[in-house]
Amino acid sequence: MTSLDKNHWFTEVSDRDGSAFSLRINKLLEQQQSPFQHVAMYETTDFGNLMVIDGCTMVSSRENFFYHEMIAHPALFSHPNPKNVVIIGGGDCGTLREVLKHDSVETVTQIDIDQVVTEMSLKYFPELCSANDDPRATLLFDDGIKYMRDAQAESIDVIIVDGTDPVGPGEGLFNHAFYQSCLAALRPGGVLVQQSESPLMHMPLLLEMRAAIKQVGFGALKTLPFPQPIYPSGLWSVTLARKGLGFDGFRACDPDALNTLYYTPGVHQGALAEPPFMTKAFNQQG
Amino acid sequence: MTSLDKNHWFTEVSDRDGSAFSLRINKLLEQQQSPFQHVAMYETTDFGNLMVIDGCTMVSSRENFFYHEMIAHPALFSHPNPKNVVIIGGGDCGTLREVLKHDSVETVTQIDIDQVVTEMSLKYFPELCSANDDPRATLLFDDGIKYMRDAQAESIDVIIVDGTDPVGPGEGLFNHAFYQSCLAALRPGGVLVQQSESPLMHMPLLLEMRAAIKQVGFGALKTLPFPQPIYPSGLWSVTLARKGLGFDGFRACDPDALNTLYYTPGVHQGALAEPPFMTKAFNQQG
Repeated sequence: MTSLDKNHWFTEVSDRDGSAFSLRINKLLEQQQSPFQHVAMYETTDFGNLMVIDGCTMVSSRENFFYHEMIAHPALFSHPNPKNVVIIGGGDCGTLREVLKHDSVETVTQIDIDQVVTEMSLKYFPELCSANDDPRATLLFDDGIKYMRDAQAESIDVIIVDGTDPVGPGEGLFNHAFYQSCLAALRPGGVLVQQSESPLMHMPLLLEMRAAIKQVGFGALKTLPFPQPIYPSGLWSVTLARKGLGFDGFRACDPDALNTLYYTPGVHQGALAEPPFMTKAFNQQG
Repeated sequence: MTSLDKNHWFTEVSDRDGSAFSLRINKLLEQQQSPFQHVAMYETTDFGNLMVIDGCTMVSSRENFFYHEMIAHPALFSHPNPKNVVIIGGGDCGTLREVLKHDSVETVTQIDIDQVVTEMSLKYFPELCSANDDPRATLLFDDGIKYMRDAQAESIDVIIVDGTDPVGPGEGLFNHAFYQSCLAALRPGGVLVQQSESPLMHMPLLLEMRAAIKQVGFGALKTLPFPQPIYPSGLWSVTLARKGLGFDGFRACDPDALNTLYYTPGVHQGALAEPPFMTKAFNQQG
């Protein structure tokens, strides 16, 4: 046996990947079984606090900036003037904080099914929740799939799907019906962005997701890879899709004003430079 | 205890990072205690074969392309006409294979201290050794530090330091004396490139290394991040330094002709877009 005993380490075994990732912990801070999932918070020795949902690492203090910046900024800067934004999931509120850095944004509605996630984040990741009281923000705790189904047609500029893996509560966020709702709710030129797993480890899933998004009628797709140290393989992605238009560049921001740790226009451009291992897989799909 | 028992998993615990990474294995294929280090080869369930040196994951079939392409191509394409290349370390021969894709290259001398690494690679990573018989290649099994100390002045265009972490046999590859030897052996405009650990996890080490390289008289430095799924944090880096000149762009190749899985000119450009978390650390150092 290894020395990764449960009193000193949190371990996520990813059966589908044949890999496991462990962080050394000082202690379990809190855990709750919500109506939807098991949510735990650990204090780690080197990654700050760590949120774990149903046994999967979700967010740590040390490295969440990669994910939150990359799910928010490429989508928003790909839109000429995003005013109304919806976040499905995102209960830790880190994505919300990044979205609210955009002056053009007039409203952001976040719909996470599980209030426990946000309550835990307020307590253990206060820095991610620093924009929750922004008057432009509305936090709902409800079913995001239903919310999108009922959304007014052509009322949203950017939809950010910041959900868990396509198992458990996040499953319904990866199918045709959901993407159709999103397409209908977006204004022309609107952008959908979704976390799209590891391009190294989960290409079949990514291809399936891209196919479903295309089939409901979105225009061009872009899958942007970025580092995600606590998820399997350390390489993750977001996939952007646009209603009625392709992706013709993006607005370049002043990176200092944006106050990011990873995202810059140069990093955005770099993430658009699709590596051949991804291009080959996408082309095989056609 | 976790279920990562030693019969079914290889686990590397990275004490300095407070993290651990495990790959599921079918079996141990071979292990040898060389005069320098312990070298083991596993067959994994999802990553192909895995080489482990002194308990640290080194190379797997599935993802070594990130590392080998990124330690070779940015350095070679930053030089206008690299003819004579030296690889210190690199015993798995994957870097050598990438270097030999460059038509301008007339000689590549690889000096790895441990022949066992190359013997194991020939057996279990034959695809990485496919260029070993190229008439331009010379494989030496010797002390790379001594080799560089004795190298003829101004005789090399690109030096690639493809060593292990700065502990054990790799330790002497990260100090002033070694960098001075490299500087002397490079022709004007020559490029030194070295694997430089994780910019997320090992910034103090990276800063120390950059300082030492600058102090011996190299010109501009560039640290390029890239994915490295089986190393701590999944985010790794190479640091390039140039003798007497800065880095003013690089030669753009035809990516199809290069037959890479990760590297393209666009990916190279993207890796040069230093994320703010790195820039801030570098600037604090001055």
